[in-house]
Amino acid sequence: MTPRVKEILSWYEADNAGTLTNLARLLNHGRLAGTGKLVILPVDQGFEHGPARSFAPNPLAYNPYYHFELAIEAGCNAYAAPLGFLEAGARAFAGEIPLILKANNADSLRDDKDPDQALTASVEDALRLGCCAIGFTIYPGSAHEFDMYEKFRVCAQEAKRHGLAVVLWSYPRGSALSKEGETAVDVIGYAVQIAAQLGAHIIKVKLPTAHLEQAAARKIYEERHIPIATQAERVRHVVDCAFAGRRIVIFSGGAAVMDNEKLLDEFRAIHDGGGFGSIIGRNSFQRSKAEALQLLGKVMDIYAGKTVR
Amino acid sequence: MTPRVKEILSWYEADNAGTLTNLARLLNHGRLAGTGKLVILPVDQGFEHGPARSFAPNPLAYNPYYHFELAIEAGCNAYAAPLGFLEAGARAFAGEIPLILKANNADSLRDDKDPDQALTASVEDALRLGCCAIGFTIYPGSAHEFDMYEKFRVCAQEAKRHGLAVVLWSYPRGSALSKEGETAVDVIGYAVQIAAQLGAHIIKVKLPTAHLEQAAARKIYEERHIPIATQAERVRHVVDCAFAGRRIVIFSGGAAVMDNEKLLDEFRAIHDGGGFGSIIGRNSFQRSKAEALQLLGKVMDIYAGKTVR
Amino acid sequence: MTPRVKEILSWYEADNAGTLTNLARLLNHGRLAGTGKLVILPVDQGFEHGPARSFAPNPLAYNPYYHFELAIEAGCNAYAAPLGFLEAGARAFAGEIPLILKANNADSLRDDKDPDQALTASVEDALRLGCCAIGFTIYPGSAHEFDMYEKFRVCAQEAKRHGLAVVLWSYPRGSALSKEGETAVDVIGYAVQIAAQLGAHIIKVKLPTAHLEQAAARKIYEERHIPIATQAERVRHVVDCAFAGRRIVIFSGGAAVMDNEKLLDEFRAIHDGGGFGSIIGRNSFQRSKAEALQLLGKVMDIYAGKTVR
Amino acid sequence: MTPRVKEILSWYEADNAGTLTNLARLLNHGRLAGTGKLVILPVDQGFEHGPARSFAPNPLAYNPYYHFELAIEAGCNAYAAPLGFLEAGARAFAGEIPLILKANNADSLRDDKDPDQALTASVEDALRLGCCAIGFTIYPGSAHEFDMYEKFRVCAQEAKRHGLAVVLWSYPRGSALSKEGETAVDVIGYAVQIAAQLGAHIIKVKLPTAHLEQAAARKIYEERHIPIATQAERVRHVVDCAFAGRRIVIFSGGAAVMDNEKLLDEFRAIHDGGGFGSIIGRNSFQRSKAEALQLLGKVMDIYAGKTVR
Amino acid sequence: MTPRVKEILSWYEADNAGTLTNLARLLNHGRLAGTGKLVILPVDQGFEHGPARSFAPNPLAYNPYYHFELAIEAGCNAYAAPLGFLEAGARAFAGEIPLILKANNADSLRDDKDPDQALTASVEDALRLGCCAIGFTIYPGSAHEFDMYEKFRVCAQEAKRHGLAVVLWSYPRGSALSKEGETAVDVIGYAVQIAAQLGAHIIKVKLPTAHLEQAAARKIYEERHIPIATQAERVRHVVDCAFAGRRIVIFSGGAAVMDNEKLLDEFRAIHDGGGFGSIIGRNSFQRSKAEALQLLGKVMDIYAGKTVR
Repeated sequence: MTPRVKEILSWYEADNAGTLTNLARLLNHGRLAGTGKLVILPVDQGFEHGPARSFAPNPLAYNPYYHFELAIEAGCNAYAAPLGFLEAGARAFAGEIPLILKANNADSLRDDKDPDQALTASVEDALRLGCCAIGFTIYPGSAHEFDMYEKFRVCAQEAKRHGLAVVLWSYPRGSALSKEGETAVDVIGYAVQIAAQLGAHIIKVKLPTAHLEQAAARKIYEERHIPIATQAERVRHVVDCAFAGRRIVIFSGGAAVMDNEKLLDEFRAIHDGGGFGSIIGRNSFQRSKAEALQLLGKVMDIYAGKTVR
Repeated sequence: MTPRVKEILSWYEADNAGTLTNLARLLNHGRLAGTGKLVILPVDQGFEHGPARSFAPNPLAYNPYYHFELAIEAGCNAYAAPLGFLEAGARAFAGEIPLILKANNADSLRDDKDPDQALTASVEDALRLGCCAIGFTIYPGSAHEFDMYEKFRVCAQEAKRHGLAVVLWSYPRGSALSKEGETAVDVIGYAVQIAAQLGAHIIKVKLPTAHLEQAAARKIYEERHIPIATQAERVRHVVDCAFAGRRIVIFSGGAAVMDNEKLLDEFRAIHDGGGFGSIIGRNSFQRSKAEALQLLGKVMDIYAGKTVR
Repeated sequence: MTPRVKEILSWYEADNAGTLTNLARLLNHGRLAGTGKLVILPVDQGFEHGPARSFAPNPLAYNPYYHFELAIEAGCNAYAAPLGFLEAGARAFAGEIPLILKANNADSLRDDKDPDQALTASVEDALRLGCCAIGFTIYPGSAHEFDMYEKFRVCAQEAKRHGLAVVLWSYPRGSALSKEGETAVDVIGYAVQIAAQLGAHIIKVKLPTAHLEQAAARKIYEERHIPIATQAERVRHVVDCAFAGRRIVIFSGGAAVMDNEKLLDEFRAIHDGGGFGSIIGRNSFQRSKAEALQLLGKVMDIYAGKTVR
Repeated sequence: MTPRVKEILSWYEADNAGTLTNLARLLNHGRLAGTGKLVILPVDQGFEHGPARSFAPNPLAYNPYYHFELAIEAGCNAYAAPLGFLEAGARAFAGEIPLILKANNADSLRDDKDPDQALTASVEDALRLGCCAIGFTIYPGSAHEFDMYEKFRVCAQEAKRHGLAVVLWSYPRGSALSKEGETAVDVIGYAVQIAAQLGAHIIKVKLPTAHLEQAAARKIYEERHIPIATQAERVRHVVDCAFAGRRIVIFSGGAAVMDNEKLLDEFRAIHDGGGFGSIIGRNSFQRSKAEALQLLGKVMDIYAGKTVR
Repeated sequence: MTPRVKEILSWYEADNAGTLTNLARLLNHGRLAGTGKLVILPVDQGFEHGPARSFAPNPLAYNPYYHFELAIEAGCNAYAAPLGFLEAGARAFAGEIPLILKANNADSLRDDKDPDQALTASVEDALRLGCCAIGFTIYPGSAHEFDMYEKFRVCAQEAKRHGLAVVLWSYPRGSALSKEGETAVDVIGYAVQIAAQLGAHIIKVKLPTAHLEQAAARKIYEERHIPIATQAERVRHVVDCAFAGRRIVIFSGGAAVMDNEKLLDEFRAIHDGGGFGSIIGRNSFQRSKAEALQLLGKVMDIYAGKTVR
């Protein structure tokens, strides 16, 4: 147990030994074990965007085993997926990588300006599959946001009682926000705060832009000269919004189409800004495994503090 | 236990021995026992379309015993029906054929552009009636889709806990889809993926057409040249969408009015494309029993790999 | 136990001994005991239409004891009423007549083109009041139909578990149907099928007219020449829709204003068509007791097969 | 135990000894003990209309102790109030007066043409506060009426199981009724019937006017010449609607502004018509205590059958 | 235990010893211990308004430890916050200050003319975190008010059963009220009454203005000459509305921008009017700690009855 991991665990002072054990498992697995940094492989795109859009670029990815193998070979901290994908490999790969069960999901067949999520798995499922954590998505800004907060509350309370960790995807979205506002730095900061106040252990958000969405917030950003010009500054601000950095905040892995160097710059900015790591889906499994391992290796080098320019 | 059935069971690695036993019962019953292929008789049309439309073409079919007998004589793998039909024969035919209790149903008296289903039976009912599995319908694309996913989750979790198998009818439908889109190959592939991610053991869909419904999906089908020109290719793609073929996908039995030779071509395409079989309702019980047995016999020959041209 | 009652009980092969005992109590009580026919007195009109409209024509009927006495003196098979009416006499008349607790109810104060019912009593109430069965109403065709099916499912499952019988009033109604369609023979046949598939033991519908409501159904009635010209033919068809007559179907007792001879013709048609009896409310308690006993006597004679022209 | 109280208790033949004991406590307390008549002090106006409108006319009434004292000194049968008011005095006045916990409430801050009530207390609260009964309000005619009936069912069943009595305020109101219709004699009669069928022990309604609201009802009132010209006749009819007088019906105490003699005439009419008493709120606590005691004394004299003209 | 605290506790006569103990803890902690007055630090603004708007004025406040320390150093009676903030410090500061877990919350990302709150924590959470009380918000006047009352009822009943105290934020708001009406003295008085009737132990409202919102209420205020001209008079009236002062009413701490002297006048008015104290958020943590301690010290001096002009 490294001092850094001990320090991080010390922030979760209200949690029982079971939950701390599972948080430690996430932090002490893979190439970044002990650094306090995390790179997680999430594969819920089959559900969220459909199988062809997700897996046709690399058809091996249709197979649920592929993602377990990719996460293990790349030395990720954990692999996160919906019920079906985890049921399809949890026994074959038992004990080889920490698992996060995505407990709610949405699809792209129905379009709704106020998006919602369906509960698709339970804490009981996570326990029988040997998971370390449950994952959950909320859409702050949606007309359905309170329903999602309340379902999360029930699910998170049960998870904590049973010694699981809780990862919360906090994605601002809905009729109350402009498209640009979904990644505005004030809104992302707010999304992180909500997730932290709801009791999440690990919070996942998108990388914020320098846009400011809410008038009342813009006023204070300008008055107080909160630095948000660079990506690293914005990451630092967002981490501040998570209880002055006392909650783990990780960032999603960028658009699938982005070129590699630009992509790596994002990870450098996260690292420089004090972010705790990344959750990288499409940029992992939509390339050949060799390319994916190379990219993930570089990302982990960045988070491990090795010079990779 | 044939090697093929053992192989299929091996994919369901997260399930308990009870569920595997019931999956094995389905796979090891009837003329296709041990082949890994399934032909199931479903009779929920009395509920879904009304009794006269369903049974007047062959009035013996008003009687619930008729369908048990038909499924048994034809050597089907299982018989699936709503609560009432199973209660009406489960004791008389106890142990003669695996049963699937259809746990939700809709009728055609109310028309809704966003269809839904009512929960009409329970896992407790399935257990007291000696069933091997519960059946459930979802309509991905309907405004009510999340409600159905959530009810399914509760029902499927309870079924698995009690050692039952779970069969999911995944029928895209609703205001978000065009009529043509309901059987578009991208949408059917998506419906299969959703069902698999929700944790279904056996997935039933309609045969897909070559239509592509969603713009974002069409792009990838064209870029990646996913072969969807022939029925067999489309079946193969849809099976791929079910965890690279690691979940059982079966197809509905075609329109009632179709001529026999054209119909058999559909089963050949399913077989050639790697589909796991069919669920044949109206084309079974709306003919005389002799004709039905002849047709089902031919279908089973196709799935058993015997030449029947 | 007559052979006919034994035969009828044999159809309910999935039910436990408790439920069969209560079905037998209904079939073996009163003047029609053992014939397999039923005449039931239902008094929920006070709730459904209001007390003055229901009881002012025969003011003795305001008193809950009156209906117990009427049902007992007439030799009915059972008396069905809401919670209040049964609580008001269940002890005084304990053991004198089988009781059916109407578990949901509606009133006429609120008008809704898509009618619904409120749950107003429970299986626990039925058990503590010594009832043989619970009664329940659904409105197939209403926008609320699925809610009613789901409440019924919960209530019926609990009733069966506790050895009660289940009587289902299946009344097509709602914005999806024309006024004429509510008693159309295709729709009544469909309503009976839904009730049977939902697991009801005894199904109550209105007498069907020769009208055909749904285009898809009309086509099959015409193609197959289903005989629906006479009332007896329509009754026979409706009974067929109840699992080829393997579920008890009874009919409501006609409009209150009808003259007696015309009314008796309806009962003759029910008898000739193979119906299992009647549930006669307003035509019983809105006359003087003497007149009611005379009418009910004639109806029972018809069902007992005695010539009463 | 007087013969009259014994007679009244005999009507509640389905209730357990606990509930009869509590009904007896209500009937055997205060100046009207043993007469079968009831005068109850209800104070939910603070919740329903606001504190200033309710208590400013007599500022001592802001204090919860005041109402306990008033009810005790006046010799009322019981005191009814929401959770807060009862919690604030139940220990100080334990055993001095039967208490009725008002389990649902509404306020006047939100206006809704289809009014509803919120559940604000529970049977468990009633038991821990030493109450004899729970009170509940329904608004027959509101679009939310079924929700209220269903909440009442759950609450009443639990109350009866635990030996409490159940008092139901049945106030027709909602978009389906005209303002005048809320107190129309047909509608009040209907409201009483619904309450009785729902299983209430004591029913509270407003005094009916001679207005007839529903066309179908008007027809029968006219045809049958139901006497509704005088207030006493209307009371008698409404009592008839409560199972021919076999359920206790009490009436609200008139508008606050009414002059005393006119007010007393109302009580005389209730007495003459066979009503079981009154529930008098604003006319009690919005006067000085001396005046209130005088008025309540006169009312009780009327119900006790003493000449007070 | 001072006589004043004993007196206050005596008002909560229906509560169990556990709840009284926790009320006593709140009243007997900090600089105002034993005076019967309360100054509470609430920090839910991160959730309600967003982190930058709340904490950027004093960036130390991003850190959850800051607020524990501020409340302890200032000698507040208690610290109130949502789940996340309490989980982040409850162990480090265990036993140093009474905690109030804010059990429901809203955010400012979604705007709704009829505001609502999401349940975000539970009584179980409050118990495991060592809290003395749960906090809850209702919005009387919102279309969702009944939902909030009902959720409160469930939560409060469970809290009382487990010996916790219950603090209710009662904030009139919603489409039924004008903006000015939200702090109108009649409406604030009403909000206090509702909270008291719902069974709250401690009620928090905003300081009322002299505006009168509801016509029916204005009439009585004018007729009865209820004194509402000065802030102290309005406080006194509002305290009267809380069961003639037999429930603890505290007031929110004014707008953040207000100058200090004007602010102190508000506290003087609360004190003079018989208010029980204040809950001061933004005016505490949005200044430097030194300034905040100075201000809070002055406020406590006012409540302690020391001359601080």
